[in-house]
Amino acid sequence: MKTSKITYKLFFLIILILQIFPSFAQNKDKPNIVVFFVDDLGWQDISVPFYTGKTAINKKFHTPNLELLAKESTKFTNAYATPVCTPSRVSMLTGVNAAHHRITNWTHPLANKPTDNPDDLLTPPDWNINGMSPDPNIPKTFHATPFPMILKDHGYYTIHVGKAHWGSAGTPAASPKNVGFMVNVAGHSAGHPQSYYAQQHYGNMPGKASLQAVPDLMEYYGSETFLTEALTLEAIKAISEPIKRGEPFFLNFSNYAVHVPIQPDPRFVQKYLGNGLDATEAAYASLVEGFDKSIGDIIHVLKEKGVYENTVIIFLSDNGGLSLKPMRSGANHTQNLPLRAGKGSIYEGGIRVPLLIKDVQDGKERVSDVPVIIEDLFPTILEYAHIKDYSLVQKNIDGKSLASLTKGKTDGSWKNRSLIWHIPNKWTVPDGSGINFFSAIRRGDFKLVYEMKKGKLELYNITEDIGEMNDLSDKNPKELRALSKILSDQLKRWEAQMPVIKASGKKVPFPDELN
Amino acid sequence: MKTSKITYKLFFLIILILQIFPSFAQNKDKPNIVVFFVDDLGWQDISVPFYTGKTAINKKFHTPNLELLAKESTKFTNAYATPVCTPSRVSMLTGVNAAHHRITNWTHPLANKPTDNPDDLLTPPDWNINGMSPDPNIPKTFHATPFPMILKDHGYYTIHVGKAHWGSAGTPAASPKNVGFMVNVAGHSAGHPQSYYAQQHYGNMPGKASLQAVPDLMEYYGSETFLTEALTLEAIKAISEPIKRGEPFFLNFSNYAVHVPIQPDPRFVQKYLGNGLDATEAAYASLVEGFDKSIGDIIHVLKEKGVYENTVIIFLSDNGGLSLKPMRSGANHTQNLPLRAGKGSIYEGGIRVPLLIKDVQDGKERVSDVPVIIEDLFPTILEYAHIKDYSLVQKNIDGKSLASLTKGKTDGSWKNRSLIWHIPNKWTVPDGSGINFFSAIRRGDFKLVYEMKKGKLELYNITEDIGEMNDLSDKNPKELRALSKILSDQLKRWEAQMPVIKASGKKVPFPDELN
Repeated sequence: MKTSKITYKLFFLIILILQIFPSFAQNKDKPNIVVFFVDDLGWQDISVPFYTGKTAINKKFHTPNLELLAKESTKFTNAYATPVCTPSRVSMLTGVNAAHHRITNWTHPLANKPTDNPDDLLTPPDWNINGMSPDPNIPKTFHATPFPMILKDHGYYTIHVGKAHWGSAGTPAASPKNVGFMVNVAGHSAGHPQSYYAQQHYGNMPGKASLQAVPDLMEYYGSETFLTEALTLEAIKAISEPIKRGEPFFLNFSNYAVHVPIQPDPRFVQKYLGNGLDATEAAYASLVEGFDKSIGDIIHVLKEKGVYENTVIIFLSDNGGLSLKPMRSGANHTQNLPLRAGKGSIYEGGIRVPLLIKDVQDGKERVSDVPVIIEDLFPTILEYAHIKDYSLVQKNIDGKSLASLTKGKTDGSWKNRSLIWHIPNKWTVPDGSGINFFSAIRRGDFKLVYEMKKGKLELYNITEDIGEMNDLSDKNPKELRALSKILSDQLKRWEAQMPVIKASGKKVPFPDELN
Repeated sequence: MKTSKITYKLFFLIILILQIFPSFAQNKDKPNIVVFFVDDLGWQDISVPFYTGKTAINKKFHTPNLELLAKESTKFTNAYATPVCTPSRVSMLTGVNAAHHRITNWTHPLANKPTDNPDDLLTPPDWNINGMSPDPNIPKTFHATPFPMILKDHGYYTIHVGKAHWGSAGTPAASPKNVGFMVNVAGHSAGHPQSYYAQQHYGNMPGKASLQAVPDLMEYYGSETFLTEALTLEAIKAISEPIKRGEPFFLNFSNYAVHVPIQPDPRFVQKYLGNGLDATEAAYASLVEGFDKSIGDIIHVLKEKGVYENTVIIFLSDNGGLSLKPMRSGANHTQNLPLRAGKGSIYEGGIRVPLLIKDVQDGKERVSDVPVIIEDLFPTILEYAHIKDYSLVQKNIDGKSLASLTKGKTDGSWKNRSLIWHIPNKWTVPDGSGINFFSAIRRGDFKLVYEMKKGKLELYNITEDIGEMNDLSDKNPKELRALSKILSDQLKRWEAQMPVIKASGKKVPFPDELN
């Protein structure tokens, strides 16, 4: 009887504890996950070096919070996204490569509006111009299960803050609430803010609002709250709820910075002007330091609330840095040197992005030079959340979990991995430096670039020639043929879309079909 | 040992059950609460009669879902709000009378913009033109603790859908997320929709958007989804989350209907045109049937998910029906007959609203003729949620819980209750029929009306003369003096604000100071 009585008391005590701290039972298995997603940030546009040491570009920028985060993270020095935003964002959300999901260019804020520019030679294919969709039968969308929906269905409190841009207005994915987020702040179908300024209501001025006017932030109107700061305050407000409840949360903090319009963040711009940067580049650097402060502020709250240790943090950009004048200063395509070109390009400047992952297991600083790509985040995040049992609309995913790499483990499976890019689109005018109608593959040290309009293949040794200056196609025909075959086979397997040659009405050939 | 082993097994079983169904432990004590709040709906503008039987006005409207709800609810036949929206909405949110919280007129979508019309005789006082605020030190706001914040802090999953209008842009209460809602759909600082039509993006057309453009509904743009339907779909989506998680929820479903612009809901308008209503009134009736379908659809989901029994449902309007031409048809102030006047007026047409409360305890149809007022909902809702232990910024609340009345219990405390209205403002031009610069009190059968501009008191027996046609001020000076004293004392206790007489620079006297 005595044993029974003690057990009885213990039993109620444990029930009481479970009631008060429901997190106790779950936390270890379900760490919080925070993604800091930055828009249009170049590979070197922070003070954390991802190349052989601090470059001149790294030195222009001040991101002290990322420097601290890097010390507890795995730094992926060969991480990639796609050349423009929507393809990257959908790849992350669905685990599927852009060639495969067929959202190969940015999506218009309104439905059924292609965003390709006119071209004399080629017609882009009938790609999914309305973005992804969690629902079937939505015209011109990629139907898939987004991972936040899986997290939500497994008890995560899911929050989106900032830029969404997964689907056009008039389709479900225009609202983050339809892709698995319980809470949405400022995310919609547009890809950039009309204005970063609260004084301009972030664009929502009567009679002046465009489709890019940022929703949801009316409490800041007329104040001096820069958009980056407003989003940070909203993110902090939103995560306080699951933290209070002891629930695991996923925060997708997708800053609108540093996308155009490159407007100076008044909190930081003076320093950069003082450092001798011109108005445009000082403004750009101020946007960079602004999101860095965002990251610092949120990490501060995570620490203060005692949940930092149990939080996975992922930092990355959605494509390379913009390299077009007059939005940026300097000659075109010089902004990301030694990387070639910038946003929109299939060359490294357009697709190489900084990626940091802080694991919960330990806070070790690690470097991984394994080539990885944005669709890898889908299985990575689900592995961190220990979710194995889920069903997907998309038949299979193309990404591969990076979780083991962040624990310092690697194996042969990474060695000859192929990463693929495919842009059968006309993003901007004029063509040039890897922009418009290109495919590419990276495997090991080598990268093959296919310029569709010229029917031309280029081969680079990325490890030795990160600037893609030395075309090896003549010198190494064996590697050229091998990569051409792998790229073509994979594109065919994915039923990737090719543009049509206007003169002949025929499709552009796959690279292995070139004469 | 055997007993201990069984207890041990039982213990794990119960823990398992608690993990899988966290609701089991809480549900009974924490029923779900749904408020269906309609905008500008007149007392008789539904097919449920609140007067002595179906009136001619009741017969114009078709609200089958409210008829069903009424059969399981307590019908309050003497329920009141304030004459316009923001004062009512803030009174409900804070439990405080409008004379006391000093938001006595509607608030502008932008901060620091008074909404009073110019007047030759009187200047309105320095009222809280920016609305309420959950934070201290926000200029021209009423600082208070809103009840959704209390619900949220006690484990409720709190959702706002539709019109908010608690505070101006640039102040915290412009965002429902700052007054205790975890999820917000389409609520902001504006008091009506720019458009009910998805084809017009609910107002968000580039270059045409006003401050009334409805946020958050981009996934419906270009479709045929009427605003009322879009909000309904969003509300259903939002409540599915706490239902799935077994968490109690509070849904504040505040339809934009039936506020101007009175645009026809295409799903229902044809019937009313066929019934002989003119275009305006048919459109109005279609807005009414639209929100009724909203209510039916949500109740259907509650039943389908098995949570209807454990859900308190409250239905009401925020002020009387609009009685101004050309927004409504017919001569001014005839739309609510036999009630006098309409929205904006201190007469019954402006302040009397339909109120239904479905308790969780039983589904009995009851009628209560106790005079009740909108600030009563604050303590009512907290009583339903069994929340007793909470702290408030507002020193005390003026409302009184109606929960006992919905259980068929009444006592002497209700008998000589005084309800008070106070409008030291100029809502519209011209003055007339109880609109602009009025105070009033109802106690028992009697109502005293104080017309500030004329320094005149009127007395009505509301029970016998609901139309306020027969002024008894000469016949019953005793009652007149008594009510005048109670009204003045209460206004003074609340430090209610009086307008200033332009000619003398003196404040308008309280009613008991009249010569």
